[in-house]
Amino acid sequence: MIFYVFLLDYRFIMARIAYVNGRFLQHSYATVHIDDRGYQFADGVYEVIVMYNGMMIDELIHLDRLDRSLKELQIRKPVSRAALRSIIREIVRLNKIKYGLIYLQVTRGIAKREHQFPNKSQPSIILTAKSITMPSRKTIEDGIKVITIKDIRWKRRDIKSLSLLANIIGKQKAIEKGAFEAWQVDDNGKITEGTSSNAWIVTQNGVLITRTADHDILNGVTRVSILKLADRLGVQYKEQSFSVQEAKAAREAFISSATTFVTPVTQIDDVLIGNGKAGALSLSLRNGYIEYANNEGATC
Amino acid sequence: MIFYVFLLDYRFIMARIAYVNGRFLQHSYATVHIDDRGYQFADGVYEVIVMYNGMMIDELIHLDRLDRSLKELQIRKPVSRAALRSIIREIVRLNKIKYGLIYLQVTRGIAKREHQFPNKSQPSIILTAKSITMPSRKTIEDGIKVITIKDIRWKRRDIKSLSLLANIIGKQKAIEKGAFEAWQVDDNGKITEGTSSNAWIVTQNGVLITRTADHDILNGVTRVSILKLADRLGVQYKEQSFSVQEAKAAREAFISSATTFVTPVTQIDDVLIGNGKAGALSLSLRNGYIEYANNEGATC
Repeated sequence: MIFYVFLLDYRFIMARIAYVNGRFLQHSYATVHIDDRGYQFADGVYEVIVMYNGMMIDELIHLDRLDRSLKELQIRKPVSRAALRSIIREIVRLNKIKYGLIYLQVTRGIAKREHQFPNKSQPSIILTAKSITMPSRKTIEDGIKVITIKDIRWKRRDIKSLSLLANIIGKQKAIEKGAFEAWQVDDNGKITEGTSSNAWIVTQNGVLITRTADHDILNGVTRVSILKLADRLGVQYKEQSFSVQEAKAAREAFISSATTFVTPVTQIDDVLIGNGKAGALSLSLRNGYIEYANNEGATC
Repeated sequence: MIFYVFLLDYRFIMARIAYVNGRFLQHSYATVHIDDRGYQFADGVYEVIVMYNGMMIDELIHLDRLDRSLKELQIRKPVSRAALRSIIREIVRLNKIKYGLIYLQVTRGIAKREHQFPNKSQPSIILTAKSITMPSRKTIEDGIKVITIKDIRWKRRDIKSLSLLANIIGKQKAIEKGAFEAWQVDDNGKITEGTSSNAWIVTQNGVLITRTADHDILNGVTRVSILKLADRLGVQYKEQSFSVQEAKAAREAFISSATTFVTPVTQIDDVLIGNGKAGALSLSLRNGYIEYANNEGATC
């Protein structure tokens, strides 16, 4: 009688792997306690880092912003930066990510439910990863539609927190109107940003404009890279607020984020931007950004 | 030889029991998946119901508000009201709660991480319960201190959502200043509410004032009961905004919430209210509320 023994190594069965508080485990088994303050109070922060052609884009800038968000909320770092960078590389390797997203979330940890910060709690950390497909050239050239909505978010949007309820409501409104994103508008009629991306326009005079990064918007890592890129390319730009009317009268418009890079906007509400096709500067910045990712990204 | 068999029934070992998506289990084992939208987007709502002397206070009003919050966020009800009421009673029984809190949270459920609402997801529901000690008569008569802070929350505070990051930051500020609560102040210098309670004053003319319940504040279940009580007692009241200055000049002040009932405020920032002791109307409303709880509460 012969017994066949199958040795199953999770690396070969292609299960998605997550990291939760010190352990790599199958994504489907990745759980946290119901008293994690991330679950009951949105008491945590996150980052999304992109893998492009096997290269990690702007890893250290994301980790710097993570540190800043944690500091603003007085949440301790759960692990050292060196350890975190190892975990990131392991999650990429285990999930075989060439093009994809690394999602990283830190919360204040488990504590009995009381609003004030617990005296002692071990911060929770989770990481997940997934592969993504890059949009086709046609998708980019056609551009996306955005709608404009009232900005109803809290006043510390500079912190990349889990307090995203207003953002998801806005994104849902966009999807229901056949748009990709919603640009949020402050009490003065000026656009703050998208629900998961920064907002940009190019005026009829060719000036690139995006809002100043204060407490009203998240200072996107991609936003900062694009400003540097504009500098290198000799593109004239201004960091200042712009109105919905100015956006609708713009020559070009686009969004930026870690996951969308530079993605042209060709319709705002019912108004076509430019001739309804991606603008030249938008495409040039997108290509420049991808080149930057290829050249400057960190190998894993 | 005799074998002793110990039959362990969890009802007798006094472990705290939680309810998670259909199962009663030991609180310490109560977990949810990391992709629950409550954990990554604050995409959920909650209620806290109080048990007073074995009676559940305002259960149906809490469940009505839960339904409203869910509807506003387009989250399906995870279970029928009848089922929910059975679960509530079972969690009270299993945790032997005579004086305590029932915490009930519903989220949009587990879905891959994308901002827009998932096409299909099974809402998640958790319930926990814990016993609490009622404050002493002296504690109530001494009253509490509140501080005033800028209201930085989102603009849909009428929804009792998990988007509580601004609230916990405010509460933490209060605790750090030796206060019990922080009253949040809008752009016009008017007090909206506390971080986990409604705000009330009694003017020098004896008029009870609390802010109108619109999108700027949560319409507290206890708030509504106190207004009814004021009606019954013939107390003159107005639902209108009041400024920090008006609050500091008030004859009395107090907070209300399911967990604090009516709790006198005897200091706002550095200003003593009244003579620094609980006001007569505040105490009378507290006693009236407790009487109401005893008479009108639902037996379990």
